[in-house]
Amino acid sequence: MNKVFLLSAAGTSYGKTDLTGRDLSMLASKHAIERAGIKSQDIQAAFIANAFGMAEKQGHLGPLLMSSLGIPHAPSSTIEAACCSGGSAIREAYINVASGFYDVILVAGTEKISHLDTLTATTYFSYGGDYCFEGNSGASFPGLYATMARSHMHEYGTTEEELAAVAVKNHDNGFLNDKAHFQKRITIDDVLKSAVVADPLKLYDSCPFSDGAAAAIIASEEFMDKNNLQKRVSIKGSGRSGGSGSLHTRKDMTSLESTIRASREALKHANINIKDIDFAEVHDCFTIAEIIAMEDLGIFEKGEAGKAVVEGRTKINGDIPINPSGGLKSKGHPVGATGVGQVVEVFEQLTRNSKKRQVEDARIGLTHNVGATGGSCAVHIFEGE
Amino acid sequence: MNKVFLLSAAGTSYGKTDLTGRDLSMLASKHAIERAGIKSQDIQAAFIANAFGMAEKQGHLGPLLMSSLGIPHAPSSTIEAACCSGGSAIREAYINVASGFYDVILVAGTEKISHLDTLTATTYFSYGGDYCFEGNSGASFPGLYATMARSHMHEYGTTEEELAAVAVKNHDNGFLNDKAHFQKRITIDDVLKSAVVADPLKLYDSCPFSDGAAAAIIASEEFMDKNNLQKRVSIKGSGRSGGSGSLHTRKDMTSLESTIRASREALKHANINIKDIDFAEVHDCFTIAEIIAMEDLGIFEKGEAGKAVVEGRTKINGDIPINPSGGLKSKGHPVGATGVGQVVEVFEQLTRNSKKRQVEDARIGLTHNVGATGGSCAVHIFEGE
Repeated sequence: MNKVFLLSAAGTSYGKTDLTGRDLSMLASKHAIERAGIKSQDIQAAFIANAFGMAEKQGHLGPLLMSSLGIPHAPSSTIEAACCSGGSAIREAYINVASGFYDVILVAGTEKISHLDTLTATTYFSYGGDYCFEGNSGASFPGLYATMARSHMHEYGTTEEELAAVAVKNHDNGFLNDKAHFQKRITIDDVLKSAVVADPLKLYDSCPFSDGAAAAIIASEEFMDKNNLQKRVSIKGSGRSGGSGSLHTRKDMTSLESTIRASREALKHANINIKDIDFAEVHDCFTIAEIIAMEDLGIFEKGEAGKAVVEGRTKINGDIPINPSGGLKSKGHPVGATGVGQVVEVFEQLTRNSKKRQVEDARIGLTHNVGATGGSCAVHIFEGE
Repeated sequence: MNKVFLLSAAGTSYGKTDLTGRDLSMLASKHAIERAGIKSQDIQAAFIANAFGMAEKQGHLGPLLMSSLGIPHAPSSTIEAACCSGGSAIREAYINVASGFYDVILVAGTEKISHLDTLTATTYFSYGGDYCFEGNSGASFPGLYATMARSHMHEYGTTEEELAAVAVKNHDNGFLNDKAHFQKRITIDDVLKSAVVADPLKLYDSCPFSDGAAAAIIASEEFMDKNNLQKRVSIKGSGRSGGSGSLHTRKDMTSLESTIRASREALKHANINIKDIDFAEVHDCFTIAEIIAMEDLGIFEKGEAGKAVVEGRTKINGDIPINPSGGLKSKGHPVGATGVGQVVEVFEQLTRNSKKRQVEDARIGLTHNVGATGGSCAVHIFEGE
């Protein structure tokens, strides 16, 4: 396998916008190309990560993006794996470059959802689960993750205050991110007193519906060398796993098997231990999801993650910063963009461009992107200079 | 790159059904696994080709299919490139196996559309084009392909009778295919007298809206050898190109640049000439599309394909059989399944399993799958024993 580099990454602001997913993908891609110091003509192929284009009346986004970049000949496909679309697209780009099929691939994740009312948006999201058995019976993602939260609280004594501490920490980080959907600090009390969405999860335990796009450029060592490009960030490990598509088939609801498997694969590939990671962007669609992710990744023992958050160990200046970007909770969750946006944060951190969010001495970063309740998971490991 | 084999392929009947896209994908996959003589546990990863799952309220199809096959751990992503979703998924599977990332990959293409009324289905299809500039103005695919047909008639003198001859030949072939959507013969007169859809294209110039699924299993030489599996069909060439996403940006509407580029790449990769092909499954969503495809592939000179069809040269017993399956026109066009279904026909032909449709001495077959009006194209070349 060839060595693979993250040549560039950039994203739009996350939040509400009147732009289309197509417009957003173009903006993020142009920014990433500019940052890379290459021409769009250097891009040989693209993967678009997008889940709900049909809600915008636009599928087949690739040729539209490629045409707007002046490279209509470049092949492109949309990758969909619900909320793991972005991480899955990064995985495909990695394989395409590592194998030598292409030298430079653009990954563009994009989503526009704010034109739908909340009920319609929630319903669309539930199409990413097992709609026939779950969403159709009213079990949309807040209810499913609430079930996981209850199970975790029952098994490990995790508390609502520990869940709230995840939200507070991620809002602290998002406050420092001028592209975050929410740039305001909140308190434990704010979270506990916010409206109950699906007991025990409250509004402030939940990520928002965001619009936004993110783009990453993945390149081969040969291309980097030939063009005298600085090798600032390399992709050291890639892992991808599936998990049962629905919650009712699981033996254990306090853990995502797909996270365990994908992270093991990525760590083995990178030939490192989870303790070697300096920070991670994990999939915190709900506060409980961040706690389960940290445990499944092996960052903390099972049942210990909640306490670690309360102790401040996962803050930007803690011993293992989690979601310095603000995460899905505060930075936002434009579904197709999310997994690519995690890579944007890693790129910013490893190139020392994160300003007040900068994780000191960050050299190895991990991204963890989940689809639905764990039906898909992608984990990537990046190393800075 | 490692040698890659098409270990197995199988499809459901195409037409109207009450089954869901999810059910259909499972049926086709189970059949392909059974034919392969392997266990589902041998499958390491999957690509699902699907375009309109959202119209069925179900995205993220992979984990559902993997769970139903008893392999929920296997990673899967949905690939969407409008009507080229299937060919694009075959391409990704090829790259994943050729590169050594995986040894056995399942590609499952599936679509369920018959629950939508014709107007809604046509509108959904148009989301695969440039909806903002085309579909939204009433330029759905029949109108766009009609524009291409008029242009081709103007430039090369192609006639409505030549277009009709494509439909007649494909219905002759579909009549011999017990899984085809339409299994009836038609005459030139039937086509010419059928209702005008978008002048000069009539109802019988147009493929139907079909439900259906198709599955292919792509495997490495190492896996084939280790399991003493017969190497009946190998993948010799793979090509993939993009084209401008909309028709109004083209200099020439009588040709698809993406077909020209993808086929050149595939032929070069296979190290053969188009004249070495014994038969081809091409993307005949409308009769004009088959004529343009044959010319862009280099099977006939520009402006000569229509005459060749009338002369019978593309019949099953002609010198270059085109769409022995019946093509999209008669076999049907379940969008996500179509490109994978072409591979099923190639597998049947190259393993001498096509009964009355059998192309004599077929040894090299080509598949040509197009998205929208050429925004995407995938071409693959297969060789039998």
